[in-house]
Amino acid sequence: MSSNNISIPDSDLPRIVIVGGGFGGIQLAKSLRNKKFQIVLIDRHNYHTFQPLLYQVATAGLEPDAIAEPLRRIMENQKNFYFRMAEVQEIDTTQQKVLTSIGEVGYDKLVIACGAMTNYFGSPFADKVFPLKQVHQALDLRSHMLQNLEQAVLTKSEKERQSLMNFVVVGGGPTGVEVAGALGELKIHVMPKDYPELDFRKMEIYLVEASPRLLNGMSQKSADKAYRYLKRFDVNIQINKMVEDFDGEKVTLSDGSSIPSTTVIWAAGVMGNVPKGLDEKVVKRSRIVVDHYNQVSRLEDVYAIGDIAMMSSEEYPNGHPMLAPVAMQQAELLAKNLVLTGNGKEMKAFEYKNKGSMATIGRNKAVVDLPSLHFGGLMAWFVWMFVHLISIVGFRNKLVVLANWIWNYFTYDRGTRLIIRPFVRSKKQHNQEEQLPVK
Amino acid sequence: MSSNNISIPDSDLPRIVIVGGGFGGIQLAKSLRNKKFQIVLIDRHNYHTFQPLLYQVATAGLEPDAIAEPLRRIMENQKNFYFRMAEVQEIDTTQQKVLTSIGEVGYDKLVIACGAMTNYFGSPFADKVFPLKQVHQALDLRSHMLQNLEQAVLTKSEKERQSLMNFVVVGGGPTGVEVAGALGELKIHVMPKDYPELDFRKMEIYLVEASPRLLNGMSQKSADKAYRYLKRFDVNIQINKMVEDFDGEKVTLSDGSSIPSTTVIWAAGVMGNVPKGLDEKVVKRSRIVVDHYNQVSRLEDVYAIGDIAMMSSEEYPNGHPMLAPVAMQQAELLAKNLVLTGNGKEMKAFEYKNKGSMATIGRNKAVVDLPSLHFGGLMAWFVWMFVHLISIVGFRNKLVVLANWIWNYFTYDRGTRLIIRPFVRSKKQHNQEEQLPVK
Repeated sequence: MSSNNISIPDSDLPRIVIVGGGFGGIQLAKSLRNKKFQIVLIDRHNYHTFQPLLYQVATAGLEPDAIAEPLRRIMENQKNFYFRMAEVQEIDTTQQKVLTSIGEVGYDKLVIACGAMTNYFGSPFADKVFPLKQVHQALDLRSHMLQNLEQAVLTKSEKERQSLMNFVVVGGGPTGVEVAGALGELKIHVMPKDYPELDFRKMEIYLVEASPRLLNGMSQKSADKAYRYLKRFDVNIQINKMVEDFDGEKVTLSDGSSIPSTTVIWAAGVMGNVPKGLDEKVVKRSRIVVDHYNQVSRLEDVYAIGDIAMMSSEEYPNGHPMLAPVAMQQAELLAKNLVLTGNGKEMKAFEYKNKGSMATIGRNKAVVDLPSLHFGGLMAWFVWMFVHLISIVGFRNKLVVLANWIWNYFTYDRGTRLIIRPFVRSKKQHNQEEQLPVK
Repeated sequence: MSSNNISIPDSDLPRIVIVGGGFGGIQLAKSLRNKKFQIVLIDRHNYHTFQPLLYQVATAGLEPDAIAEPLRRIMENQKNFYFRMAEVQEIDTTQQKVLTSIGEVGYDKLVIACGAMTNYFGSPFADKVFPLKQVHQALDLRSHMLQNLEQAVLTKSEKERQSLMNFVVVGGGPTGVEVAGALGELKIHVMPKDYPELDFRKMEIYLVEASPRLLNGMSQKSADKAYRYLKRFDVNIQINKMVEDFDGEKVTLSDGSSIPSTTVIWAAGVMGNVPKGLDEKVVKRSRIVVDHYNQVSRLEDVYAIGDIAMMSSEEYPNGHPMLAPVAMQQAELLAKNLVLTGNGKEMKAFEYKNKGSMATIGRNKAVVDLPSLHFGGLMAWFVWMFVHLISIVGFRNKLVVLANWIWNYFTYDRGTRLIIRPFVRSKKQHNQEEQLPVK
């Protein structure tokens, strides 16, 4: 079919181009195995990232190989499948083609599954904070924290030492809560052995949340439990406050108070990673408006799934939650619908089966919200681990994560506290999007 | 005692400053546990690197956490021990102090254990080749190789594709042989599954050695076996040849022939990493001349051990081999001698117990030279694995390496084929020494 210059072979099969190898993208590609389509998957990385555990890479609990799975391996032995590592630059819906950093490719059907990126809400200090959406950002944060502690050993200024040992987490959603809990574990169980010269009672972890409560997407009961659990790890929780300014050395909060700190971890929000070239009318709140078949309004043959898709329903008037299960369920249904419509049959409307949500807070504690049951503590922690283990893509990765968890639990150790930063980056560089090396 | 501004507490104990956390440095620090010294260990990384397995990080078989061990963990619970992450800039033997990137520290005894760095023999193309002495270099080579294959899928030029799929290893010593063997495994067993679009019969691995034979430090018998084993993995061995030129796209050999390739892996030689400030008279062939007590000529209270030390003997007139066992044996003896001399007793002279040498060549094959026995094949491969496993520093690392080896062996998989390069580097940058982020 359509023209392309990224070396996809011509085929009699209709070509489906999937943009993004996240939960939605790979689920769709897998669900279309052995169906009568040619599949082209485009991602700027050669791996799928299991984002729910990125924070454990950042806190020295896991190496990237545990949570990143090469996309080519995921699709091994899948016929009519082509992976291309490229950055998507623009979508041309009139000519039905995708323009990328390595050239352009035409499509018969296009599925946009670009996911979400960090939302800085226009903060002028965005270039100074640490986001947590990509592997290299997690590695960067890990090295930064360890370097801070090395520097804390050296400095003769009590004030500088305190600023190096203060860590500010912005955003009280699941990511923020989990990061704060993991930092609490490092503070209490791990780092004091490494740095006998430092007094870790002075290390302060702040969790700043703009709304009146933690875990806004979850039940009040779970939020209360999470609050208590975090307190056990000495986390200093600041609700009803926002970060107003950060100059790289001092965080100013909306109530006028300030925290001396060189480290701000930004888990405050995400926004859709909308590619260029789409009509503005189909974009709402940084997401692409789709109908109940994930079809983009007014665009035949263009679909969007997962975080990037804004599908409203009675239950979710502002769009479905930006969660992996939504993306995967939409992908599965879309695969079926693409087959149905290919056979001239009618498509089925999406209905989200809410499987609940959860967050963990350090060792032994988690909170779980099922549709009709909320519980916390050790039991929730086991459920959290089990659900994450079965969700991780790739059998090897499941094993690696499990083995690391067992090791970390029983030894109070973190295996990966390595400072590996090939080059000194300016604060400006580190949270830029990774550049693509392939021309 | 002596002045310092890197926050080492004053102590009544004599201060031993160890420069370098390699095999020699950490063995010395460990052997001095509970002895009456204050120990200061300086390294530019916060981890010890198990260099013999770096090539497996480069060939996607291991992650850095398997072969890098945080120095602070190695020395956990060791009293009077201080680690400082810093780059040594100069040694001032008249004032008995070490100048570093974070300040200066005085010493009563100084032990130089800086190890070796890549020797490019003055090649004008040194900035275009991939060395393999540090973790970040291994990660860089891994990403480069995978990017080459992604590019090979894209290109429409048969010539460019061949150049992307040709890998040239320079140096037929153990490292070169092991890298070539690992690449052979990737070619035959691993990569064809990932890249069904590429014809891996066309991937060529060249091993270029200047002398008439491989594994010069080992027996002729082992060299012959290694040659045969490499041939099984389709490695193209070019002996009696040197690389005369490399422009980033084409390798020119000394016999006038050329190989189109974008990847040159430099395992051709190492040289001592001699710090500045030493009298030129004590440096010979880029190593520091020491007597049989590892004492630097004409410098009281300064010692050098391991690769950096040039200790001649009847058996080794040009200095001992640059191998981990030499460094560790010298460190152990020096620890004893420092105690002896502290008690006013006479020191013991070093005598190297040669425990043999070995190299592995892909799955199931290795060669082992013991002082009185040479053998190869499967048995040697098991010996190679066993010796490396027990030598890896840290129990966790042993487990991680073993688990990865078992997985890789039975699945023909490599878990870590991830392209993680935060920034596009110029060819000029990638083999520069890592810069230190701490001021």
